[in-house]
Amino acid sequence: MKYVKNLVCISCGESYEASPTQYLCPNCGEKGILDVQYDYEKIKKEWSKKDLASNNDPTIWRYTPLLPIEPNSVKPPLRVGNTPVYESKAMAKELGVSTLYIKDDGLNPTGSLKDRASSIAVVKAQEARINVVACASTGNAASSLAGNIASMGNEMRAVIFVPERAPIGKVTQLLIYGALVISVKGSYEETFYLSEEAINKWGWYNRNAAINPYLVEGKKTSSIEFAEQLNWNMPDWLVYSVGDGCTIAGAWKGVYDLKQIGFIDKVPKLLGVQAEGCAPITKAYKSGNDLIVEKENTLADSIAVGKPRNYIKAIKAVKQSKGDMVNVSDNEILNMMKVLGKKTGIFGEPAGVAGVAGIKQAVEKDIIKPYESVGVVITGNGLKDIKNAQKSVGEPLRVSTNINELYNLLNEYF
Amino acid sequence: MKYVKNLVCISCGESYEASPTQYLCPNCGEKGILDVQYDYEKIKKEWSKKDLASNNDPTIWRYTPLLPIEPNSVKPPLRVGNTPVYESKAMAKELGVSTLYIKDDGLNPTGSLKDRASSIAVVKAQEARINVVACASTGNAASSLAGNIASMGNEMRAVIFVPERAPIGKVTQLLIYGALVISVKGSYEETFYLSEEAINKWGWYNRNAAINPYLVEGKKTSSIEFAEQLNWNMPDWLVYSVGDGCTIAGAWKGVYDLKQIGFIDKVPKLLGVQAEGCAPITKAYKSGNDLIVEKENTLADSIAVGKPRNYIKAIKAVKQSKGDMVNVSDNEILNMMKVLGKKTGIFGEPAGVAGVAGIKQAVEKDIIKPYESVGVVITGNGLKDIKNAQKSVGEPLRVSTNINELYNLLNEYF
Repeated sequence: MKYVKNLVCISCGESYEASPTQYLCPNCGEKGILDVQYDYEKIKKEWSKKDLASNNDPTIWRYTPLLPIEPNSVKPPLRVGNTPVYESKAMAKELGVSTLYIKDDGLNPTGSLKDRASSIAVVKAQEARINVVACASTGNAASSLAGNIASMGNEMRAVIFVPERAPIGKVTQLLIYGALVISVKGSYEETFYLSEEAINKWGWYNRNAAINPYLVEGKKTSSIEFAEQLNWNMPDWLVYSVGDGCTIAGAWKGVYDLKQIGFIDKVPKLLGVQAEGCAPITKAYKSGNDLIVEKENTLADSIAVGKPRNYIKAIKAVKQSKGDMVNVSDNEILNMMKVLGKKTGIFGEPAGVAGVAGIKQAVEKDIIKPYESVGVVITGNGLKDIKNAQKSVGEPLRVSTNINELYNLLNEYF
Repeated sequence: MKYVKNLVCISCGESYEASPTQYLCPNCGEKGILDVQYDYEKIKKEWSKKDLASNNDPTIWRYTPLLPIEPNSVKPPLRVGNTPVYESKAMAKELGVSTLYIKDDGLNPTGSLKDRASSIAVVKAQEARINVVACASTGNAASSLAGNIASMGNEMRAVIFVPERAPIGKVTQLLIYGALVISVKGSYEETFYLSEEAINKWGWYNRNAAINPYLVEGKKTSSIEFAEQLNWNMPDWLVYSVGDGCTIAGAWKGVYDLKQIGFIDKVPKLLGVQAEGCAPITKAYKSGNDLIVEKENTLADSIAVGKPRNYIKAIKAVKQSKGDMVNVSDNEILNMMKVLGKKTGIFGEPAGVAGVAGIKQAVEKDIIKPYESVGVVITGNGLKDIKNAQKSVGEPLRVSTNINELYNLLNEYF
């Protein structure tokens, strides 16, 4: 890791050597999230926008100087990153902003932004010479880990702990990728702690979000890539939905890195969007008090995190960017799935479009001004959650095979 | 259309002007499929591999000289094409071939190869100044049309006819994209004919497969792109699953074009793979007789086409390539979904992995030799059909929150 200096605890400031299995700060426990520190001066001297422009690798590995990996480590072959950015005039008008850029991260290989983190986990596990990588998750973290591990051929194995309530559809994707899926008769919390015990016992590599400081560094490629695709001109706002806080913290890290090495001049304000039914980070952000654990009462399951583990980094990110946070209701999310689909051809999962719904609200609340430009990342593919999508749409027109019946119906319709 | 000469009927050989709404040959009816003819000499003079190498557009529009569109027509913004190709040593070993390249076309914007055809339909409709595009389909043709139309903002409308038996999940994706979905109380055949009547009555643009000669030209970008990604060295075999015959006919057209303009020297043999429960094209190919309509008795719904409309072109393609055809059972498909997922991290829908299952059989039958190289296209994303994927995988391990129970289970397992 040519440009990595060390890991620093975001709670007590203690430094640690950046070894692959250095997870939390031992002094601070769960609050001791570590942050990877880079030698920006050195990167600045040795890496330029021009180097990037002449690099034909379209994946996140084009950003290796800003990643906490050994340059020659074996990478999982799935093509992670290089997801499309669209400017949508129709959605800009709908939301009431001057310009809107939408990045569809649901087109990552396993269907979500989490591929950016899981691919890093696979590299780090190999650097540590550990062949089994484990996490507790029912969602995109798990499927992206299982998929990236599978792409290594027969070399590695994913072990995924899920609570028994996990929907069979999501478990299916894990099993297709050949993961060992362990269904725990208990809550998500109990499942998480069981996974931690097992990881320690067997010495597996730990891909649990926030515990592992390298995952955020993978996620930051979403904002770095966004910046490069906009020719290093960041919009006024960058919008992400927020669950455990890792993704928005990663987005900020990417922006911060780019500013430090002089690739961008303007830093966007971050808008963090939580679901009304599970918004502990927004509440802590607004109140300035410590976080209070909440129930997980939203259909946007990928951001339904009642006990988020990376809220400190997330809140710091929003504050440092001079951004803000809002909450959106399930109805706002469902409605926006339909509007976004109809006006852009992008089908996002509920958590994936929550950010877009948040833009609408932020404009109504005068947080985002009508003359400002906005970028938003759709974090997961709508095909992952057809059941909730069904709730957002109406019914088809029903006709017999009689052409006259169709004529009459359509004459009314058109 | 700088390089298009005309349209020629594949049954009677009559020529027609390449207008956007020239569908079937009026003399030959349903058998009168038209084929777009290009001026290869002119393309050869004016377009080179070097031009392509310096073209930064990653989408199918980089192949515009070989597409039947006006160079300045407005394109739908979805990023169609540029899907990844992976070389998989683990799967090559599993299947018993020397080298295996897998192209994951399930990572197209709406999740299938059909985006390549539907985006062409959107361009052609605009060239004809028609704002409504219609088709009869329950599957990927429909969702890709609806998504590409949606990406035009509010400018166009998709009308999709589905038989009432269409699964609600597939209808949901159409409704999310804002298509007008017309559910017909009748069979697929009745739905198709109702759509044709309505298309004629209202003058909508016709995206029904095989009827519209331009769709195959979009599909051919899958083999052209594959060739470019392999640095113009085609493998010995190129493998596609086969439903109505348009996709494999398109693949051949792409290969043929490249050979004519000198971009490739070696032409691959085509392996067409149908489902055992619905294999009318394989039977016509093997017997040499005319096609007999079949029942649609397979879970691979995207290739369950009992009355395929483009079988003549498909059979010609396989024969001209000196290739072959095989059928695979639903069990072979389900098993291959699991094997492919586990060894590559690619999750394909049943029709999408049927081609891979076909390779295994073709090796066993000595059609593909162990020393030959093979390319296969995964035509659709597995997230589109979680229900069938469930049938292919087992169950998770079930444990209580007791760590000792887990220890005992895993000690057996590892």
